[in-house]
Amino acid sequence: MNDRLFHFVGGGEGQFSIEEMRAVCGESLPLASKLYVGLGLPSWPGTFSLRGVVSHERYVTRAERSSLVLAQEAIGRKEATWGAFIPLKKSAAWWALTQDERRQIFEEDSAHIRIGMKALPRIARRLHHCRDLEEPAPFDFLTWFDFRAEDTSVFDDLLAELRATEEWKYVEREVDVRVVRSGGG
Amino acid sequence: MNDRLFHFVGGGEGQFSIEEMRAVCGESLPLASKLYVGLGLPSWPGTFSLRGVVSHERYVTRAERSSLVLAQEAIGRKEATWGAFIPLKKSAAWWALTQDERRQIFEEDSAHIRIGMKALPRIARRLHHCRDLEEPAPFDFLTWFDFRAEDTSVFDDLLAELRATEEWKYVEREVDVRVVRSGGG
Repeated sequence: MNDRLFHFVGGGEGQFSIEEMRAVCGESLPLASKLYVGLGLPSWPGTFSLRGVVSHERYVTRAERSSLVLAQEAIGRKEATWGAFIPLKKSAAWWALTQDERRQIFEEDSAHIRIGMKALPRIARRLHHCRDLEEPAPFDFLTWFDFRAEDTSVFDDLLAELRATEEWKYVEREVDVRVVRSGGG
Repeated sequence: MNDRLFHFVGGGEGQFSIEEMRAVCGESLPLASKLYVGLGLPSWPGTFSLRGVVSHERYVTRAERSSLVLAQEAIGRKEATWGAFIPLKKSAAWWALTQDERRQIFEEDSAHIRIGMKALPRIARRLHHCRDLEEPAPFDFLTWFDFRAEDTSVFDDLLAELRATEEWKYVEREVDVRVVRSGGG
């Protein structure tokens, strides 16, 4: 298996308890009580099983990356026991745009990176791509975040701001799955 | 299977006879007499079996795409009985660049699109991505070309010009497989 391939499996087992699950746009996912997140596929069957690959960045410039690298934290900090798993699918119209048009909407019009920066270092994020896997996938991206319980409102504000952007007009399916690390605070 | 996933399998069967196979850079591929190209995996085992997904463009601007769309032909013209299968792997240094840096090298420094335009409509091309598949792949891209026998020199000039660019300094493996459609001229 590709060593950048992560699995997200909902079911009765996993490192995270699912607290809330709702469709923001389009169809939701089958309900589950636990979420497994990891590089290998677990041995149990899930009510849903999604996977995606961590890849190179598609829009970030050198200047932006320099700022991001200074500010961001990696997923998995001990105290970041709250998480959010948000799979997203963008429309055919998005994928028919050219690179300059996508970049224009992503950052110049929607300030995706600038909005995200405001939540750093409190919110950690990892992006997984699933549009170009061998098997067809129901989402284009799987986004995975973690943060401390007290930073939940920072995270909610971040999502609200992103969902109001021009870029989000191209999102045709989005599910918001909130989790807490099992045994964590 | 993803309906944009193409297979390239070398062996004793396939629609194309392999005329020549050589490593331009890095390791070659196992020898084979025929090349199968198609959406499904063939029933026979190959000496090599590669696959990649047709995806959205990563660097082309709207203005460039408009020019390309006007000039280019699709793979599979009846008279285009000669083909070239050229899998490529770029270095870790390439993938560590940001989008603006890759675009700068790809087009502003290397004129990849402008060089390619000169060979249109005689050379048709299809690009397949394999960096973000579930299974690890030995190449990042599989490129597939077809043209008429008399346009072989146009194709060779195109390759020579591309291989002399700044972008090609990041290519660490490249195999050049020339084929002729079986039963074709």
